[in-house]
Amino acid sequence: MPQYQAPLADFQFLLNDWLDINEHYKSLGVEEFDAELANEIIAQGGKFAADVIAPLNREGDEQGCKLEDGQVSTPDGFSAAYKDYVANGWNAMLGSAEYDGQDLPYSMAVPVHEMLNSANLSWRLTTMLTESAILAITKHASEELKSLYLAKLISGEWTGTMNLTEPHAGTDLSLLSTKAEPVGDGRYEITGNKIFITAGDQDWSDNIIHLVLARLPDAPPGVKGISLFLVPKFLLDENGNPGQKNKVSVGSIEKKMGIKASPTCVMNYDGATGWLVGEENQGLACMFTMMNDARFQVGLEGLGTAEASFQGALAYARERLQSRAPQGVQSPDSKADPIVFQPDVARMLLTQKALVEGCRALSMMYAQMMDIEKYADGEQKHQAGMVIQYLTPICKAFMTDMGLEASNLGVQVFGGHGYIREWGMEQLVRDTRIAQLYEGTNGIQALDLIGRKLTRDGGEMMNATYQAFLSKVSMIEETGAKEKATALLEEWKSVSTSQLGKSAEDVASAACDYLAYCAYSLIGVLWYSMADTATRSENTTLASAKGKTRDFYIARLLPRKDMHLAALETGADTVLAVSGSEFDYI
Amino acid sequence: MPQYQAPLADFQFLLNDWLDINEHYKSLGVEEFDAELANEIIAQGGKFAADVIAPLNREGDEQGCKLEDGQVSTPDGFSAAYKDYVANGWNAMLGSAEYDGQDLPYSMAVPVHEMLNSANLSWRLTTMLTESAILAITKHASEELKSLYLAKLISGEWTGTMNLTEPHAGTDLSLLSTKAEPVGDGRYEITGNKIFITAGDQDWSDNIIHLVLARLPDAPPGVKGISLFLVPKFLLDENGNPGQKNKVSVGSIEKKMGIKASPTCVMNYDGATGWLVGEENQGLACMFTMMNDARFQVGLEGLGTAEASFQGALAYARERLQSRAPQGVQSPDSKADPIVFQPDVARMLLTQKALVEGCRALSMMYAQMMDIEKYADGEQKHQAGMVIQYLTPICKAFMTDMGLEASNLGVQVFGGHGYIREWGMEQLVRDTRIAQLYEGTNGIQALDLIGRKLTRDGGEMMNATYQAFLSKVSMIEETGAKEKATALLEEWKSVSTSQLGKSAEDVASAACDYLAYCAYSLIGVLWYSMADTATRSENTTLASAKGKTRDFYIARLLPRKDMHLAALETGADTVLAVSGSEFDYI
Repeated sequence: MPQYQAPLADFQFLLNDWLDINEHYKSLGVEEFDAELANEIIAQGGKFAADVIAPLNREGDEQGCKLEDGQVSTPDGFSAAYKDYVANGWNAMLGSAEYDGQDLPYSMAVPVHEMLNSANLSWRLTTMLTESAILAITKHASEELKSLYLAKLISGEWTGTMNLTEPHAGTDLSLLSTKAEPVGDGRYEITGNKIFITAGDQDWSDNIIHLVLARLPDAPPGVKGISLFLVPKFLLDENGNPGQKNKVSVGSIEKKMGIKASPTCVMNYDGATGWLVGEENQGLACMFTMMNDARFQVGLEGLGTAEASFQGALAYARERLQSRAPQGVQSPDSKADPIVFQPDVARMLLTQKALVEGCRALSMMYAQMMDIEKYADGEQKHQAGMVIQYLTPICKAFMTDMGLEASNLGVQVFGGHGYIREWGMEQLVRDTRIAQLYEGTNGIQALDLIGRKLTRDGGEMMNATYQAFLSKVSMIEETGAKEKATALLEEWKSVSTSQLGKSAEDVASAACDYLAYCAYSLIGVLWYSMADTATRSENTTLASAKGKTRDFYIARLLPRKDMHLAALETGADTVLAVSGSEFDYI
Repeated sequence: MPQYQAPLADFQFLLNDWLDINEHYKSLGVEEFDAELANEIIAQGGKFAADVIAPLNREGDEQGCKLEDGQVSTPDGFSAAYKDYVANGWNAMLGSAEYDGQDLPYSMAVPVHEMLNSANLSWRLTTMLTESAILAITKHASEELKSLYLAKLISGEWTGTMNLTEPHAGTDLSLLSTKAEPVGDGRYEITGNKIFITAGDQDWSDNIIHLVLARLPDAPPGVKGISLFLVPKFLLDENGNPGQKNKVSVGSIEKKMGIKASPTCVMNYDGATGWLVGEENQGLACMFTMMNDARFQVGLEGLGTAEASFQGALAYARERLQSRAPQGVQSPDSKADPIVFQPDVARMLLTQKALVEGCRALSMMYAQMMDIEKYADGEQKHQAGMVIQYLTPICKAFMTDMGLEASNLGVQVFGGHGYIREWGMEQLVRDTRIAQLYEGTNGIQALDLIGRKLTRDGGEMMNATYQAFLSKVSMIEETGAKEKATALLEEWKSVSTSQLGKSAEDVASAACDYLAYCAYSLIGVLWYSMADTATRSENTTLASAKGKTRDFYIARLLPRKDMHLAALETGADTVLAVSGSEFDYI
């Protein structure tokens, strides 16, 4: 597999041409940011991802993590790369300026995050979880906790974790049983076991700040009785430095399919000292405020691994000589032609390319909405917030499903060599597979989309999303493309509207197909929009490629929406008919 | 993951009710075989797979294989299980009676092979490759070679391997460069390097018989200059026992994504002594005679792992309590309902079930054709042979693609736990992934189907296949189902016919979508047929389940055929338009 290279030309097109980022920042009144800065950050971020992080990826998978004497160690080079990352300020991109963060627009950070995922998913996860912890503390913690913890988390001196899952409480957090006993001076003793804790321990930072969901003694049952606590690995001394070890320990590291260089820990809290974050019994609400961000970030993991797989497959297909191309000899001086000229290989590469670029456009549109939600006011902010709510489960589930499909296609292009570990192609499959499972399985995302985001407010978020995509369509200059994009968008709105009023079982049975239907339709709209913009780009190769890749997407991938539509319209009947021993045939 | 259990009820239904196996054997004049024997063999084979082979699967993946001092060792228990298998005669099921084989009909062996794949894919591969070697020697070797090698390969005293691939010759065997020099007394010196050799060495048997493709000194270039050689690990002494070590050695064991307990070897031939099998320069033709069998066997690997994943997912979904079912409380005494009642989980389980049972029916119909091809004469034999030719790439590619989809669904049902190795669900994904790659990638299968099997003889094989499926349709008693099955089959025939006369690039661009279109359509026909037969089955639970699972397949999975149809009809234009630097955006 070749060294990862940052897809800068595509980011430049999306930022400069498609989103017109200068105008975007100007319209939001944040003129301290401009395209030049955005391009510079993305170029430097891409360089860091490619030169520092990517070279550690393959060997990290082989070494994995170790737990010795209660201390986790990560593969060679991982900790040093983290210190480099922190020293260069990358950890502080989105942190509040009040705590020495750079407070950049999301449109500058999202490309960097995608590239870190491409380079080394295991490595990236620790910083991603720290960002989630920063968000939770920033939004919900007391001023005292903020002043003690926030600056060091933003700088990256310390890292953060999220502790939700317990052995019998995954999707259903109402079942969680970790306890928090108040000890009278604002502190709590936390007792319980948490599983699947990403970077629950590591050898990168002097302290680790765990955010832990637990129940107070008098808490109501179910999700209304869950509170959020901050539990540091080392309690702070009077100077705010790590002092005494807290009563939290790593029980074991999970042996996993992939992301082996990321320590996924079983955490034991044995009367560990913690502090309440937010209000009592409002823990789940605190979690929800950062769930959009975390779920979108997981979507970017799918996108990042898909891009990495595409690069590997493309390079291999250009070098590997096997057979002659059916359309005629391509390399007369060789005994065979590069397989990139085989139509079926081209089909696989274009499937990767069309999905990756479509999802990248979706992610940059999401970032645009995040910027508006951050900097605008009133109705504009409210509308952007609704679009974000609606697009979050689509980004999380579709981009991670796409990540698996694309990385499997990458293996397929390599043939038998794709199955051999040293090439790195199969690692991408194993690594990206987790993204369909954590931060809410993709089934849960689909239920969130159709059951909450679409249905709960009678389609208001869907309408806001419609308006956001309509504004992309309205900018299409070529009449034929505009008509097709309009028809696609209107069909999607009509199908979405027709879901309202369905029964709970019909909604649940339609969920996954509805999500995929939305994604293929909306990304189709974005393809019409991108290809139209590209005709006016100075990059003529990219302009030509965007048009042709749009054609491939429309001809070869968009038909998937109709399959999902046919399936989702059949309702719950066939899904719920089989029951009990009818499942067996043993 | 629960212990694997043989799906005997489904096999009994397929053999006794659907295929009417007694009548089948009678019509072929092999009345020494009957349903009672078939059911007994399948029951015993299932017991062996479940009790002896399956328990070794998880630990085999963790231990993997080792190469020390030139000798490969396999995980604990693997060799003992093989000796047990051989002692119980399982290796000899299909071998010629002339060499002490049991010469059973394929319809008895295929279920056993599926179950061995479910139980432990790594373990199964060695015996599968031995069967291929037996077939090649039986059909092409001289009487002298047969008398020396065949009985011991059939009994399982020795094992066999297939040596085709070289580092620069995979799909395109015309590029292979291993050399065979005649030494004058009927022997040849074989020199070259082969890769991806399954069970190239192991600690199971006293000798290993390698079948090796190589070029004679005066051979014409390309595939017309390839010959097949038999190269034993140990040369035989005058008593036919393993004697002097031959000049063949294991260079290394590949580190792979999965099937880690199967030693995939780099083999070095350094002037190793070999004997010609078949005619000079006819090596590829020798290979092709057993390719149908080997490719179908790989299809069974996909089916076997899908079944294992379904069993694991179903058991977990019945035990795992999370949230309440949207259609109402199912377990009032628990805090949550089993997730099997969640419509989206039921959707995943039914997708597995409908695909597995559909593919199992296809594999048993294939076995039926293999029986006819073996025992019948004249036109009946010829027709069956054509159906086999046509269905082989469909079985190989579709059943292995389905294997990956189903095993990924199994992981998804487990949520985050599916990603943890100890549950065994992710191992099924890693193990089954190879089946889409070897014995010809699935892209090559698709090209074989549309470019050779369909097109080369102007649709004759397709017509034979049409007739075979029409005879299933004609037995459907319920009028509505018969009409729908007929419409499905006629559409498939019409679409297939419309592929004839397309350009080479259009054919190559349509290949994978055409194969999937065929599979979904033909399996749809089989679902109508099975569900109709089931209404007359004594097993009322199975009868009810077959009807409901057919409804699910038709409503939820059959729409995929239309997606593939839409894609394949777009031709090569969008596939070949993007070229050169238009693929890049770096």
